[in-house]
Amino acid sequence: MNFASDNAYGAVPEMFEALRAANAGAVPSYGDDALTTRLAAEMAHVFEHEVAVFPVITGTAANALALSTLVPPYGAIFCHSDAHIATDECGAPELFTQGARLATLDGAHGKISPETIEEAVSHFSIGSVHHPQPAAVSIAQVSEMGTCYRPDEVRAIASVAQRYGMKLHMDGARLSNAIASLGCEPADVTWKAGVDALSFGMTKNGALGAEVVVFFRAEDVRDFEFRRKRFGHLISKMRFVSAQLLWALENERWLGWARQANTLAATLAKRLGEISGVEIVHPVEANLVFACVPERVIKTLRDSGAEFYDWGPPRGGRTLVRFVTSFATPEQDIDRLLAACI
Amino acid sequence: MNFASDNAYGAVPEMFEALRAANAGAVPSYGDDALTTRLAAEMAHVFEHEVAVFPVITGTAANALALSTLVPPYGAIFCHSDAHIATDECGAPELFTQGARLATLDGAHGKISPETIEEAVSHFSIGSVHHPQPAAVSIAQVSEMGTCYRPDEVRAIASVAQRYGMKLHMDGARLSNAIASLGCEPADVTWKAGVDALSFGMTKNGALGAEVVVFFRAEDVRDFEFRRKRFGHLISKMRFVSAQLLWALENERWLGWARQANTLAATLAKRLGEISGVEIVHPVEANLVFACVPERVIKTLRDSGAEFYDWGPPRGGRTLVRFVTSFATPEQDIDRLLAACI
Amino acid sequence: MNFASDNAYGAVPEMFEALRAANAGAVPSYGDDALTTRLAAEMAHVFEHEVAVFPVITGTAANALALSTLVPPYGAIFCHSDAHIATDECGAPELFTQGARLATLDGAHGKISPETIEEAVSHFSIGSVHHPQPAAVSIAQVSEMGTCYRPDEVRAIASVAQRYGMKLHMDGARLSNAIASLGCEPADVTWKAGVDALSFGMTKNGALGAEVVVFFRAEDVRDFEFRRKRFGHLISKMRFVSAQLLWALENERWLGWARQANTLAATLAKRLGEISGVEIVHPVEANLVFACVPERVIKTLRDSGAEFYDWGPPRGGRTLVRFVTSFATPEQDIDRLLAACI
Amino acid sequence: MNFASDNAYGAVPEMFEALRAANAGAVPSYGDDALTTRLAAEMAHVFEHEVAVFPVITGTAANALALSTLVPPYGAIFCHSDAHIATDECGAPELFTQGARLATLDGAHGKISPETIEEAVSHFSIGSVHHPQPAAVSIAQVSEMGTCYRPDEVRAIASVAQRYGMKLHMDGARLSNAIASLGCEPADVTWKAGVDALSFGMTKNGALGAEVVVFFRAEDVRDFEFRRKRFGHLISKMRFVSAQLLWALENERWLGWARQANTLAATLAKRLGEISGVEIVHPVEANLVFACVPERVIKTLRDSGAEFYDWGPPRGGRTLVRFVTSFATPEQDIDRLLAACI
Repeated sequence: MNFASDNAYGAVPEMFEALRAANAGAVPSYGDDALTTRLAAEMAHVFEHEVAVFPVITGTAANALALSTLVPPYGAIFCHSDAHIATDECGAPELFTQGARLATLDGAHGKISPETIEEAVSHFSIGSVHHPQPAAVSIAQVSEMGTCYRPDEVRAIASVAQRYGMKLHMDGARLSNAIASLGCEPADVTWKAGVDALSFGMTKNGALGAEVVVFFRAEDVRDFEFRRKRFGHLISKMRFVSAQLLWALENERWLGWARQANTLAATLAKRLGEISGVEIVHPVEANLVFACVPERVIKTLRDSGAEFYDWGPPRGGRTLVRFVTSFATPEQDIDRLLAACI
Repeated sequence: MNFASDNAYGAVPEMFEALRAANAGAVPSYGDDALTTRLAAEMAHVFEHEVAVFPVITGTAANALALSTLVPPYGAIFCHSDAHIATDECGAPELFTQGARLATLDGAHGKISPETIEEAVSHFSIGSVHHPQPAAVSIAQVSEMGTCYRPDEVRAIASVAQRYGMKLHMDGARLSNAIASLGCEPADVTWKAGVDALSFGMTKNGALGAEVVVFFRAEDVRDFEFRRKRFGHLISKMRFVSAQLLWALENERWLGWARQANTLAATLAKRLGEISGVEIVHPVEANLVFACVPERVIKTLRDSGAEFYDWGPPRGGRTLVRFVTSFATPEQDIDRLLAACI
Repeated sequence: MNFASDNAYGAVPEMFEALRAANAGAVPSYGDDALTTRLAAEMAHVFEHEVAVFPVITGTAANALALSTLVPPYGAIFCHSDAHIATDECGAPELFTQGARLATLDGAHGKISPETIEEAVSHFSIGSVHHPQPAAVSIAQVSEMGTCYRPDEVRAIASVAQRYGMKLHMDGARLSNAIASLGCEPADVTWKAGVDALSFGMTKNGALGAEVVVFFRAEDVRDFEFRRKRFGHLISKMRFVSAQLLWALENERWLGWARQANTLAATLAKRLGEISGVEIVHPVEANLVFACVPERVIKTLRDSGAEFYDWGPPRGGRTLVRFVTSFATPEQDIDRLLAACI
Repeated sequence: MNFASDNAYGAVPEMFEALRAANAGAVPSYGDDALTTRLAAEMAHVFEHEVAVFPVITGTAANALALSTLVPPYGAIFCHSDAHIATDECGAPELFTQGARLATLDGAHGKISPETIEEAVSHFSIGSVHHPQPAAVSIAQVSEMGTCYRPDEVRAIASVAQRYGMKLHMDGARLSNAIASLGCEPADVTWKAGVDALSFGMTKNGALGAEVVVFFRAEDVRDFEFRRKRFGHLISKMRFVSAQLLWALENERWLGWARQANTLAATLAKRLGEISGVEIVHPVEANLVFACVPERVIKTLRDSGAEFYDWGPPRGGRTLVRFVTSFATPEQDIDRLLAACI
């Protein structure tokens, strides 16, 4: 019973057929192959917009490469204090940007508000060489707390960003889950809402390892390709990464996998929330469930083989824990987990 | 007829079965899985030595991460002027090391000699803060010119390196081809010959994308794991990279694939060299063939669909070109290529 | 009437005689001169301890070079959220360290407490490559709010730092003012209290431009000298920087200048605090006075030619402003300032 | 008898009066003072062109800051293999640029030719992400071998640079000596000849420590001011650096000092060259004299107290040595040196 992370499971089984199909013949390396070209076309179709797409292999690379392209070394990047880029990438954004500043903001349920950003920006001395300069906002869709930004919420943030000449980056490691949850078009929460660059992840949603950086305006790409190469992220047999992304995107398979993960999380949250002493602390809008759970229940769960992370130290006999579901989480594991709770 | 590069071909077909087998169940991410553990054991077996192994996805990452772990920012790295780290990684070593200096050396057939290294080191002011300090030697096995360092040659280089307190790094993007060619044990040209860190590539030899950094002494690992993470090269579903490497190493499959590529190159070189006006310019010891070929032959070849790279501008009616064979190069393509020559 | 900063004034007039005296003859450059050697001896005397001393020209350089020597790229540096390194150096610490994280902490009157540090450290995952690792604490003496850490306060912070294997750095841009205020020996608030490295500034206290990085243990120096060179901070005619520092330190001149600045600040604070509607918001322990001042008074002051900085936006008819005094602030300017207030 | 370097001597004595005069009153820090404004105007006058000028304290900082502003991290900088930026700055250009490549070129007497640059550029793959991209040429005026580029020589190099979209940087650590030697206007060998950015040093020519980065086009300045700050080179009491530069430039004092140094070098070279067995190996066009000198003469000189550097190991009983003269070298030291030779 693994609820630790959506990267604990492997890939959707058909992925291997897609890889095998991509194997035929000799093709140009480093992305000059037909599959990568098709991927670009498919993504333009999915996003209903011209896009520049750059497959990479990790989410940290996608985020740090995208941010370092958008932001100068003296820039400040506004993000939630729980954002993956701030908490789980060991300083990769600072490294890639040659020392830009992450300006972390609080916000309910893992989301930041336009007001909070604006307030934070107001403390920066625009134009002064003594201080980092506001340069980008980065939001995670799905957020680290499992919530989603609605299109109007993204637009409102983009509006603040634009007012201060900042770029808007979206960390879409779980974008699939967000789109499946919001029921909107991918365009609605990205470029139509003002997103300039997107880290779009498929690794947590059915792929073996496939992320893609998406720019919605050609001029924002700048020196991205040199950055990708120099940081060691230009993959020689690119076709195998592109094949994963293509397979996922074609016929909306990605949304099906994400819906499955979301549904399991919703079920888990609903039933878990009915248990005495358990409190679901964030709206469950994707595939993450955060719950305050009594210590004795936690012990019982772990004794029964359930894996999940504590999200803080115990407080008042309860601990905040996180359950993650994925495209591959067995449905019966939900039942087993809940059975163990009682 | 693709002789452009050994990364133009895909993967050995069984690789996909290995990946599928690795897919079962939920496992810890980021390398804490059983396959990665087995890989470490298998590599210790292959190298007959305790090793610390860190899978990554590109050769540039493997080299730059290894070098930046071995070398301080003020260090100098001695390598051949044609070395991949000097010519094909767009400054990644300088980037990862925070500005170390590549001190490039000439040498016949892509190899550097102990004497050349020693002579070069003698021009450095040891201990002076005004100048980069000799810190590492990096040799490529197979070299960029398709030649191999024999164990005694590696030992002689290591001896110079050690005399000046330098580390010895081996870029083994084609180590498989070298071992297959030399007919020695992997240990013989690595740690037994004084190599401290190795970038061991399987991507050019049958894998989809799998490289591994190998340290032969625990104390050399230093902060490697933090570097790998911060440069975005810690892969979440590591099992899929480890599975490729394991599959290749088990039952010496990797050597079989490499031998096949080497044999094709030898055949190609022998028959190509017999053609009037063609000169094989470097010993063909692995899967690379460098030949001076008359312009009209080159035109004929390209017209017939052969792909290969020029390795310099035309001179005196001939051009130096490179042919690369791989585990997957169809044998008949050799015949077709040669037929086209005549 | 300049109360904007203690670097608005020039140098103590005798400084020029010291420079002229240092001018005689040809001497080795880059710090191998007799004056720099004498400086090292004098500083060992002042600090009653063996020291390694490295003059540089700016406080930002001193701080960033010291921190980058103490802290790995994946390190976290705990400091006050108002610390100069966090607010006024435009990301220099992140740049020099290759991306270390500043973990900023709140604390009354510009000082951080051992408890706050310990609480913050407790949120870091020690040993996990996903997260920056606690590596150093940096405190400013004088703090940005004009307060001083007593020896026992520094010791308590050092104790936490040591417990977690962290180094303790002191930003002593105004160390002179702190020592003059505390009435202790320099050793008492530095190495005896657990400080590992010190940025000791004389620019704000009588010099033209002279800072010095001090290490109290030889092993902490590591590659500092290469860093200083590579970041462009190894001064060729070092004698002129050393001469300034020597002149200041000999005969305790530096403490005299600092005492003068402190006395003026105390006088200013006392009399300012007596004005209706004015509130002194931080203890005035050195040469900085922070006061909430009614808007109309501020206008009157500025109209009369007084220069000082706002330290935030107006609130409730008052604004927090900062007055800085220096060794060279004319005493009558205090009178003039206060006269203008009424 | 110090002929080791032109930074072995201090400053011209009047410099201290200039500093003292700059000391009066409180002025804005960080370059917003009247002297720095006057410096900008004076430099525009000296160069007969609009200039953006940024004083710093070391030549390494001037060069590395200028180059990193002109060149992207994936850029290549073409320079002489003996250039200061390649040999004496311990990798500062690579550090500041985040890993750009120094492409070093040979050339007689320390100078590079347009042909050599063009030949080198032809080996770069323009537009390929696998290779550094030609981005700048950097020439030293005076060169490391004591020779000067004539205006037409600079123009020819600029012409190649422009043809490939490269910027032209001049390391003018000894620009004074060059201008004095060439007898041309400063404009003639800088912007009129196609120089985009200049590191103009006065430290070796009479100042205590004062260098200035000069851009001849506003758009080339880009983020220079943030770089200067972040690398710790924004000096708070800037007036003291500006005062040195102003004093030097006003009334063409700088040229007088440089002429004096050049004259001494010419005298030294002429008479030294007449000694049996001594060979002057580079044209003596400024204040550097390179001579092959018999070992026994070298011994005699050193025994008599002369200081100078070997410029390579002994060969055939002779050693290449370097003598440097400065504005402050006593004329009788030339006589004493020559007397000791005989």
